[in-house]
Amino acid sequence: MTLTVDLNADMGESFGPWGMGDDAALLQVVSSANVACGMHAGDWDTMAQTMRLARENGVGIGAHPGFADLQGFGRRKLHMPLNSLANLVAYQLGAAQAMAQGQGGRVRHLKLHGALANMAAEDKQMALACYRAALAIDPQLIIMVLAGTQQQAAAHELGCRTACELFADRAYNDDATLVDRSQPGAVIHDPEAAAARVLQMVQAGAIISETGKHIPTRIDTICLHGDTPTAVQIARAVRTGLERAGVGIKVFEGTPI
Amino acid sequence: MTLTVDLNADMGESFGPWGMGDDAALLQVVSSANVACGMHAGDWDTMAQTMRLARENGVGIGAHPGFADLQGFGRRKLHMPLNSLANLVAYQLGAAQAMAQGQGGRVRHLKLHGALANMAAEDKQMALACYRAALAIDPQLIIMVLAGTQQQAAAHELGCRTACELFADRAYNDDATLVDRSQPGAVIHDPEAAAARVLQMVQAGAIISETGKHIPTRIDTICLHGDTPTAVQIARAVRTGLERAGVGIKVFEGTPI
Amino acid sequence: MTLTVDLNADMGESFGPWGMGDDAALLQVVSSANVACGMHAGDWDTMAQTMRLARENGVGIGAHPGFADLQGFGRRKLHMPLNSLANLVAYQLGAAQAMAQGQGGRVRHLKLHGALANMAAEDKQMALACYRAALAIDPQLIIMVLAGTQQQAAAHELGCRTACELFADRAYNDDATLVDRSQPGAVIHDPEAAAARVLQMVQAGAIISETGKHIPTRIDTICLHGDTPTAVQIARAVRTGLERAGVGIKVFEGTPI
Amino acid sequence: MTLTVDLNADMGESFGPWGMGDDAALLQVVSSANVACGMHAGDWDTMAQTMRLARENGVGIGAHPGFADLQGFGRRKLHMPLNSLANLVAYQLGAAQAMAQGQGGRVRHLKLHGALANMAAEDKQMALACYRAALAIDPQLIIMVLAGTQQQAAAHELGCRTACELFADRAYNDDATLVDRSQPGAVIHDPEAAAARVLQMVQAGAIISETGKHIPTRIDTICLHGDTPTAVQIARAVRTGLERAGVGIKVFEGTPI
Repeated sequence: MTLTVDLNADMGESFGPWGMGDDAALLQVVSSANVACGMHAGDWDTMAQTMRLARENGVGIGAHPGFADLQGFGRRKLHMPLNSLANLVAYQLGAAQAMAQGQGGRVRHLKLHGALANMAAEDKQMALACYRAALAIDPQLIIMVLAGTQQQAAAHELGCRTACELFADRAYNDDATLVDRSQPGAVIHDPEAAAARVLQMVQAGAIISETGKHIPTRIDTICLHGDTPTAVQIARAVRTGLERAGVGIKVFEGTPI
Repeated sequence: MTLTVDLNADMGESFGPWGMGDDAALLQVVSSANVACGMHAGDWDTMAQTMRLARENGVGIGAHPGFADLQGFGRRKLHMPLNSLANLVAYQLGAAQAMAQGQGGRVRHLKLHGALANMAAEDKQMALACYRAALAIDPQLIIMVLAGTQQQAAAHELGCRTACELFADRAYNDDATLVDRSQPGAVIHDPEAAAARVLQMVQAGAIISETGKHIPTRIDTICLHGDTPTAVQIARAVRTGLERAGVGIKVFEGTPI
Repeated sequence: MTLTVDLNADMGESFGPWGMGDDAALLQVVSSANVACGMHAGDWDTMAQTMRLARENGVGIGAHPGFADLQGFGRRKLHMPLNSLANLVAYQLGAAQAMAQGQGGRVRHLKLHGALANMAAEDKQMALACYRAALAIDPQLIIMVLAGTQQQAAAHELGCRTACELFADRAYNDDATLVDRSQPGAVIHDPEAAAARVLQMVQAGAIISETGKHIPTRIDTICLHGDTPTAVQIARAVRTGLERAGVGIKVFEGTPI
Repeated sequence: MTLTVDLNADMGESFGPWGMGDDAALLQVVSSANVACGMHAGDWDTMAQTMRLARENGVGIGAHPGFADLQGFGRRKLHMPLNSLANLVAYQLGAAQAMAQGQGGRVRHLKLHGALANMAAEDKQMALACYRAALAIDPQLIIMVLAGTQQQAAAHELGCRTACELFADRAYNDDATLVDRSQPGAVIHDPEAAAARVLQMVQAGAIISETGKHIPTRIDTICLHGDTPTAVQIARAVRTGLERAGVGIKVFEGTPI
């Protein structure tokens, strides 16, 4: 049996006249695309175009809802009641479903964006509110979660289809949390280093911390960033590294965790 | 066989801290609710609440997309390419579908709002672009059109399920267009006058112009306004007038026109 | 020498088609108006109209900047870098100055709104960033601060013209903080009770806590709320109570604190 | 006496995480910068940064207000009442003034953006409404107008300080209007061709149409575009071409027209 893993990246983050990222290039590398839903980035035209390209490239389409904060790109924490959070996610998921359908595709998965994702990674109630709202609309939706966080705990509690995610370009602490960006080495900029590290973790079935500690975890997908200067190079190196080692790149099945 | 007609009104037009209209009262009068989708009015919380109330009252839920112009309430003309218009409508319809589903309901119909509706009433290409986008997402969706306009012509061309609409409180010219608001008598403010007029038109199966001319037309639904001081009184008078004359109030079937 | 105090209220909080509050009535009661600047509420048309009415009523005009969060009415905490906060405040102040000038008035004071005000009341660095940005644009601007908070500490540190504010309708703890809204009696709804309490505090020159403790403080202005059902009644009762006791209602001078 | 001309370009069009144009490079070429004011592009942080750079480079700062349509970049026609247009312009001008002042600069001129500019070029009442609103805030403000349009007619009628503008990269018809973009040769992409043409027009003191017709006009400033791939090259070529021919690059005085 061949070992396989999914590669995912955020996409469709252009807005009106402003471009972001090289979606066309990334879509030839990844197997899943997290498409911004118009609230922190993206607009209906960008969504339509990105989803059409994803479908044409055989890439799985995901809804990527975030806070309604365009100027802050959804990266600023915003405190909202849980039922408003649920509505925020439902609204964006529904919009994404329609846009996908209009392009002959469909939304397979959901991944939270930015500050919303960070807050849900620490607060299971927030994660539950967001995921429940999404699953009420599509019970077969695959929830993409950050491995080892309250996002994963929430998906486990809900028993829903799930995809566990690791970062390709971020160093991990011994407790499976990310090394703070202010620390040296927190972000991996070298494509070959990122590729080697991802391969090692996928083969080990574990997060490997900075100190070399192995923290066993299910790894369904690897998150590649799309908005850094070396994004596409890292993405290609990771894919090539995995394929050379015989790891297949394949969209996740989303079995419950 | 009993003569029946649907009564519809725009709803869910509150936004954030700002209220608008008396949706709870109107939902006891109408049989169809056109729910704003967050771009010209409404937000996810308002949509959820309005749709829940509509479902509880057995009122048909419609998506009511408009231009993305909150400050102008979607009443200012905005010139967009046809494919952007299509995406604008698809996005809002999808969001509405998800919000409805989250409340145990579903979107039965679609009605364009404000300047978008006015422009589509005069421009069949615009109407076609909007309706095609919506029907690509739900082919069984009922398109609510202004009787005698390019909206109706577009729905006819598409062969889709359709509901033809008249205004309860607007006077008509001999060519079936609305009397300009700048003319005296263009807007009917008296509840009894509105009720009598609606009954007469429904029984005649025709638009009756100011001069008394009858223009035969299918009448599936009567549009009641929700945001004027006398809105609820007019709505109740129209309903009572119809019921007293033996006309049933019933949500439209949406047969193609 | 007559004891005088200013009465202030938030105004200009309508947006597009949505009204809020009864500004025309409140402008006959207050001596200072805090006008929303288009980011959490208000728009250019509302600002122009409100400022014109304020000028016609001889009411002092203030800029009332808040977070750029229309849906949340600026009441949701949003985490921004200090230099962005400074720019946010400068932008809104400048817009307000121009709108006031266009109506033959001018902006005398600045008061932070909602969550921005609450965060600045607890965080002196935030208050300093906001106030410095405003004073760089108009060094003679009067900064309205919540008495006994980090807002006041910041204004004191800057040595700027200042107006210290108490709430007419909120109960105070013994440490000068507000009683949490979840506690009974935290919000005073009875006009006569509010009026009696305000008079007592103004005459004492002190915050009087729920337990009767006197905390001496400079009192330049009393905040009246404009968006509650009894807002105008409370406002009128407070003004009448003060005037009957011989306290003059007069816009603050803004001497440094 | 040396012949001089101003070079202007739109700037500060980044928004939140999205960049646009190479302002730093353009600021070394132009003598006047038209800074977006946050409604069609730009935000407070971008404005602050762009204005600081402009001041440091000795470049004149202008407010560049547009329709409040971020997604459409202010390029979509939007129909608003004249008094709302006036308020829209006043708001953005005030915000720009404050941001400039916060960076140690000041707003010297105003230029309308996109669809607002196009509509005002054809409709003198619109131009008058916008310019009057701006001049009510700063009577010494220099109004930058498209030569030969209703913008210029409005500025002439107001007797205000004015700067007349030509495009460096657009071909003109014999009636001084721009050749439609759909026509071949309408947009000049070759830096040397643009430079030669600008020099010829500046030396002739006339618009030179495609057919070679000379239409005498005052030329105070040449508009360089900033958002095309060759923008900076064209800008540099135009400046070099003028300087080599002994034409000085100097910010306009703004004498009334």
